[in-house]
Amino acid sequence: MINGVTMTINVDDKILLALQEDITSEDVTTNAIVRKPTPARAELICKQDGILAGIEVFRRTFELLGDICFTTEYQDGAPIKKGDLIGVLEGDAKVVLSGERTALNYLQRMSGIATMTNELVAELEGSKTKLLDTRKTTPGMRVFEKYAVKVGGGYNHRFNLSDGILIKDNHIGAAGGVKEAIVMAKEYAPFVRKIEVEVENLDMLEEALEAGADIIMLDNMSLEMMEEAVQKVAGRAQTECSGNVSKERLKDIAKVGVDYVSCGALTHSAPILDFSLKNLINL
Amino acid sequence: MINGVTMTINVDDKILLALQEDITSEDVTTNAIVRKPTPARAELICKQDGILAGIEVFRRTFELLGDICFTTEYQDGAPIKKGDLIGVLEGDAKVVLSGERTALNYLQRMSGIATMTNELVAELEGSKTKLLDTRKTTPGMRVFEKYAVKVGGGYNHRFNLSDGILIKDNHIGAAGGVKEAIVMAKEYAPFVRKIEVEVENLDMLEEALEAGADIIMLDNMSLEMMEEAVQKVAGRAQTECSGNVSKERLKDIAKVGVDYVSCGALTHSAPILDFSLKNLINL
Amino acid sequence: MINGVTMTINVDDKILLALQEDITSEDVTTNAIVRKPTPARAELICKQDGILAGIEVFRRTFELLGDICFTTEYQDGAPIKKGDLIGVLEGDAKVVLSGERTALNYLQRMSGIATMTNELVAELEGSKTKLLDTRKTTPGMRVFEKYAVKVGGGYNHRFNLSDGILIKDNHIGAAGGVKEAIVMAKEYAPFVRKIEVEVENLDMLEEALEAGADIIMLDNMSLEMMEEAVQKVAGRAQTECSGNVSKERLKDIAKVGVDYVSCGALTHSAPILDFSLKNLINL
Amino acid sequence: MINGVTMTINVDDKILLALQEDITSEDVTTNAIVRKPTPARAELICKQDGILAGIEVFRRTFELLGDICFTTEYQDGAPIKKGDLIGVLEGDAKVVLSGERTALNYLQRMSGIATMTNELVAELEGSKTKLLDTRKTTPGMRVFEKYAVKVGGGYNHRFNLSDGILIKDNHIGAAGGVKEAIVMAKEYAPFVRKIEVEVENLDMLEEALEAGADIIMLDNMSLEMMEEAVQKVAGRAQTECSGNVSKERLKDIAKVGVDYVSCGALTHSAPILDFSLKNLINL
Amino acid sequence: MINGVTMTINVDDKILLALQEDITSEDVTTNAIVRKPTPARAELICKQDGILAGIEVFRRTFELLGDICFTTEYQDGAPIKKGDLIGVLEGDAKVVLSGERTALNYLQRMSGIATMTNELVAELEGSKTKLLDTRKTTPGMRVFEKYAVKVGGGYNHRFNLSDGILIKDNHIGAAGGVKEAIVMAKEYAPFVRKIEVEVENLDMLEEALEAGADIIMLDNMSLEMMEEAVQKVAGRAQTECSGNVSKERLKDIAKVGVDYVSCGALTHSAPILDFSLKNLINL
Amino acid sequence: MINGVTMTINVDDKILLALQEDITSEDVTTNAIVRKPTPARAELICKQDGILAGIEVFRRTFELLGDICFTTEYQDGAPIKKGDLIGVLEGDAKVVLSGERTALNYLQRMSGIATMTNELVAELEGSKTKLLDTRKTTPGMRVFEKYAVKVGGGYNHRFNLSDGILIKDNHIGAAGGVKEAIVMAKEYAPFVRKIEVEVENLDMLEEALEAGADIIMLDNMSLEMMEEAVQKVAGRAQTECSGNVSKERLKDIAKVGVDYVSCGALTHSAPILDFSLKNLINL
Repeated sequence: MINGVTMTINVDDKILLALQEDITSEDVTTNAIVRKPTPARAELICKQDGILAGIEVFRRTFELLGDICFTTEYQDGAPIKKGDLIGVLEGDAKVVLSGERTALNYLQRMSGIATMTNELVAELEGSKTKLLDTRKTTPGMRVFEKYAVKVGGGYNHRFNLSDGILIKDNHIGAAGGVKEAIVMAKEYAPFVRKIEVEVENLDMLEEALEAGADIIMLDNMSLEMMEEAVQKVAGRAQTECSGNVSKERLKDIAKVGVDYVSCGALTHSAPILDFSLKNLINL
Repeated sequence: MINGVTMTINVDDKILLALQEDITSEDVTTNAIVRKPTPARAELICKQDGILAGIEVFRRTFELLGDICFTTEYQDGAPIKKGDLIGVLEGDAKVVLSGERTALNYLQRMSGIATMTNELVAELEGSKTKLLDTRKTTPGMRVFEKYAVKVGGGYNHRFNLSDGILIKDNHIGAAGGVKEAIVMAKEYAPFVRKIEVEVENLDMLEEALEAGADIIMLDNMSLEMMEEAVQKVAGRAQTECSGNVSKERLKDIAKVGVDYVSCGALTHSAPILDFSLKNLINL
Repeated sequence: MINGVTMTINVDDKILLALQEDITSEDVTTNAIVRKPTPARAELICKQDGILAGIEVFRRTFELLGDICFTTEYQDGAPIKKGDLIGVLEGDAKVVLSGERTALNYLQRMSGIATMTNELVAELEGSKTKLLDTRKTTPGMRVFEKYAVKVGGGYNHRFNLSDGILIKDNHIGAAGGVKEAIVMAKEYAPFVRKIEVEVENLDMLEEALEAGADIIMLDNMSLEMMEEAVQKVAGRAQTECSGNVSKERLKDIAKVGVDYVSCGALTHSAPILDFSLKNLINL
Repeated sequence: MINGVTMTINVDDKILLALQEDITSEDVTTNAIVRKPTPARAELICKQDGILAGIEVFRRTFELLGDICFTTEYQDGAPIKKGDLIGVLEGDAKVVLSGERTALNYLQRMSGIATMTNELVAELEGSKTKLLDTRKTTPGMRVFEKYAVKVGGGYNHRFNLSDGILIKDNHIGAAGGVKEAIVMAKEYAPFVRKIEVEVENLDMLEEALEAGADIIMLDNMSLEMMEEAVQKVAGRAQTECSGNVSKERLKDIAKVGVDYVSCGALTHSAPILDFSLKNLINL
Repeated sequence: MINGVTMTINVDDKILLALQEDITSEDVTTNAIVRKPTPARAELICKQDGILAGIEVFRRTFELLGDICFTTEYQDGAPIKKGDLIGVLEGDAKVVLSGERTALNYLQRMSGIATMTNELVAELEGSKTKLLDTRKTTPGMRVFEKYAVKVGGGYNHRFNLSDGILIKDNHIGAAGGVKEAIVMAKEYAPFVRKIEVEVENLDMLEEALEAGADIIMLDNMSLEMMEEAVQKVAGRAQTECSGNVSKERLKDIAKVGVDYVSCGALTHSAPILDFSLKNLINL
Repeated sequence: MINGVTMTINVDDKILLALQEDITSEDVTTNAIVRKPTPARAELICKQDGILAGIEVFRRTFELLGDICFTTEYQDGAPIKKGDLIGVLEGDAKVVLSGERTALNYLQRMSGIATMTNELVAELEGSKTKLLDTRKTTPGMRVFEKYAVKVGGGYNHRFNLSDGILIKDNHIGAAGGVKEAIVMAKEYAPFVRKIEVEVENLDMLEEALEAGADIIMLDNMSLEMMEEAVQKVAGRAQTECSGNVSKERLKDIAKVGVDYVSCGALTHSAPILDFSLKNLINL
């Protein structure tokens, strides 16, 4: 949830940096035109159908600039349509004009991710398979992007390298084998961590199961091999399908019966959902 | 250019924050498996055709983590193909494994933007019209994204609200008219700034020209109205086409004879160009 | 304008650092004497004739320390006289005593710059020539010092190396000539930038005009050479006089007809305007 | 001393902020002209007679930008003359051009303060009276400005509100009397602190001596009253003359026999000492 | 592991802040006495028997101040004795003297924690029960303190509130019951998280097991109740004993057969292990 | 005093860093269970007898997270007993749950130090000897720990290396003798600093007195030697006993008649005083 404590501790600093990226000395145009505090009103309009995400980040961006009142009846996760009036902003025209672009940049990106996630989740309906994000996020934006995936109906994989164990091929090579890697991880990692291992074939899978992996990532496998893998696992671990995941393949992947399917495109290639701040009038 | 002074003063801090986003206490998996410094080698492979951008940011991400040597014969702007070996990384396995994702997150995003830009620039070939970016960038990523647009053959609009004047409809409303707004801007802004004004019709255009605008943004105009506008301007100001700019419309826009066309999608909706760090071996 | 958004985004951090420079662990004297919150009142008195600048920075310094109420009928730009009661501060004695020096340090320096600027601007009265500042500011103080120049009636040159093009002799040398340098700058710089070139003689001037410079800086020229230069330019570019600019020479420079004259002393050598916080009483 | 540990822990961060103030995205002019690393050489020339201060800060500014070699035979405190070649800078032209202004801004300000201090110290020659600075420094510049005072032959008063006790009239009012204030300070302050009290007349002086003040500040007293005060003190405390201290009055103040005289103008109103970076050539 | 990437990304900033806490303007004593770079040598001596932890943090503290060479044959985890020469430091006397206290403050605290942990772990020898730390760490020191627990032979619980789920009595109250809380956590938390629940009696335990908790914290239970609890769990979840854990009770707790026992005193009440930097000589 | 200006300028940043150490992305457990703002109430209970210190830091930790109301009738310095209800916290359950551990970590540590200090101070009752702390504090915690010493009835030595002169054996060695070191310090240090010298025998003591030291630290001396030292000093300087200071030896040290005795254990080895936040109920 991006609000309350999370907003204050994990988000405010990031929004402030974004505002300082856009205003390094002053907003010259606005300061030239609006020379004294001027109450104004503007409307947030949706310009494409999709899922709303980031409405509290939008609001907070303006609040960090000055006294402002944003009223909306929408919450993150709401389906919205082109032309919808999402909310109304009232406050000093300087705050509205200087914060507009940064606030929209967050909202459009987060809503874009939620919208794409929602479309992919629809493909999995009726199955037990859940859609996961990855660490393929935009640098500095992870807290916003992973939240947007949840808003869209997806689930979060680990947040970063410090809070989850994922043993990949390179780690296996360095350790000298799947079993050795899992033993080392169990010995080293905080005991609350689950151990996930990436496997590319059924032999590696067998070794991972025997060594006690909690989660098996089936990497770049054919549907047939994945099916066999899921049967071998037989509930002894959770399974995650990874690699070449596209909207078209999702129904087939779900049929295989994996617990999770992860998709980097959710956070690295979702196009934005377009919004506009319009009709500014002085009050 | 992202190197030298720019890297040190404007980029290093951002990369460091991105690394700290991904490693809040330690890289648990890597530290579990690689217990002491271990010289290793890995390859950077391109997985899609496109334009390379961000290769020095990729290198710098690893350098900020420890001693590492990255060798490549490619420079930003080079066309690359799926399967190309872009470069080789040699150094401590910990540095390679812990920096991989963050380094790739920069490279894939910047190359994605350069690739999309390049495709759109191709549509303008043979015309005098140049492709511009906007301020619709990912929060915190502007320095990387605007640079990637240049690598792809595009041109940069103003960097932020402090270093350019752009009078929009809302500013005009607040000022009481196009002319009034331009006068106020000329009076207030540092004298090295050009004054750009957004106009929606030919009357506003006329007023802007008379008041001495340096650049006229023709916003959401039909091709016909734009044509008329360009003729009216007759070289007295530069012209920029904005709004509803898609790859399909670019050739027609160029024919109109505007000096510039700006496109937000370059930075907010370009899909990534995929890369992979592969074949890690101990040396 | 230093208030509203600019204060929050571009100034607050700097004031806070200044306060932390002056209070690294605690204000020992004040904490020894004022052991509990004690409402107090103190007066801000002007001790020299001049122009007021920085009154909102003065106020903000105290506000960042705690609840305080500063009432004043003066605004930046007002002419003030020795002995004037500029304003009254009411709030916790700790806030008043601990913030006093830092708040005055800003106010005295900014008002000193505005006062000197104002004296020089008076010399230009009746001419079209405008007075400019430079980048010769105190490190970390540019936002305050450039603002004070405007308050005093001067105009701002570019804010920093990122938001303006100024080709100097060294750049010309590196580029191989005036024309080459201008071509490279036009090709590289964001299209909203004006191109300014520093020239030392009439040949360089001619070359700069032909290459399409927007602004010509006439550096360290005699009045005679400047006069000839202005005639040659004939309105094709803006002109700026630079070098050896003193109050005594300003009238003569203005007669030459340059558009601008820049003066580093405004920000690097203006003496302060003296103020005092007096008559603290408990309420 | 500004070098070694002090440079690393207390100065580097400040220089970096100053560079980031001057380069918010990139040095556009330099990057346009100098497209690849280009070895160059430039000379640091003194343009006014005075005392050198800040030469290591000048050097460090460039070092923070990239590999550079600055050679000089001068050290802080050296008397220098107009036209002197102070040092030679060799390294990438980008580093030289992008760091020039910030490095000079430090050097000229610090040398200006050292020069003014030196002139005032000369007035005190032959007496036991020492010249002190105050906390009337430029916000964020205290470490540089107090150091420059020492280079010029002056002495430092307390650095800030945390590391010295100075009981002023307002504190005395709040405490209910000189004696009460001193008692409270002795009880509260770390035992390594000396207690200084500001007195305006001989009664207050008497009370301060009885209460055991370590230092007595004689504030805005006539020469006659100061003389009497020094006799009354009779070595029981150190004495400091404060208020209306000008170069003209220094000899008379010294004759009075105070231990110290403090002067705010050293740091708040010293004009700069002018330097120039010249003759850049490619190597 | 505190070295390599972890040191750079997660530790350097913290050490630098600690040095800046101890040196706010300069190390006055050292700068007064050591006026120019002076090669020196000093010895790190152990003054109490115990377990070494933090030797790389000790080294790094000096390295952040300047060029220094620290040679040691000891590694973290080594048992050391009073009087042992742990290592030798060679470099500029300023670096040695200015860094001494901060470096020792880290080393003594980390070694104190490792030593206490080691003593408690010894009590568990021969059992399957492992010793855990808690989040009861010194603010800002968690990365150092949790690492020291591992060096002493203990295991880490979750690092913070973001990387582990621990449902406590208050959460259960808010959720309306043990089962409800677990369901909500499973639905909300990233899928790689284990769910831990704190229970105070056997009914809550039963409910937690049924709802699928991964770890059960047995809070403040008698040995008898814990024994019954472990039997009920019967391997369906991991068990952790918490509350009133002292060295004296550890053997009995281990006999109960819990998987883990957690002890806040490791990080909040371990006395330091004493070290001294001695015998500084100039080289 | 940790409140008002000190809290804002010197403490808030540190608390915020501590909260961000504990919440790197979000408080997963709390956000899973408490999905919307929920007014709640919880009690702060003391679990051990001792002296309260840090109650305003406790309160401020929650205030930095959101709107909260903490009511208490206790102030720092109050003796408290096991079972005492120290205060009541009312506000959003998210704020209470997410801030609990960090707030308690400060309170328990600060109260532990105040309690130990208080026990040692009791041993000195009836003598003139005062108890001092040292710089042996936890990195980053000095402002909290030194304050807790004062709350417990102790006195503060210098805060850091910048605000006090303490010449140790290594400095003496580097300077070539006690006298030389004192002369250099007097010449270099700000004039408000007292000069303290560490001496190990009576010859060094004599030399220090002659050179005009303000404070003499008697380091690791026997009671007999200390007695002789105090007689030799005869009021010409203040005396401080240092080294091997334990509760058991304090009465004897006081009898010797030193002015001060310093004890590192106050800040480096005091066990915490235990508190608990209990009985959270929704309102």
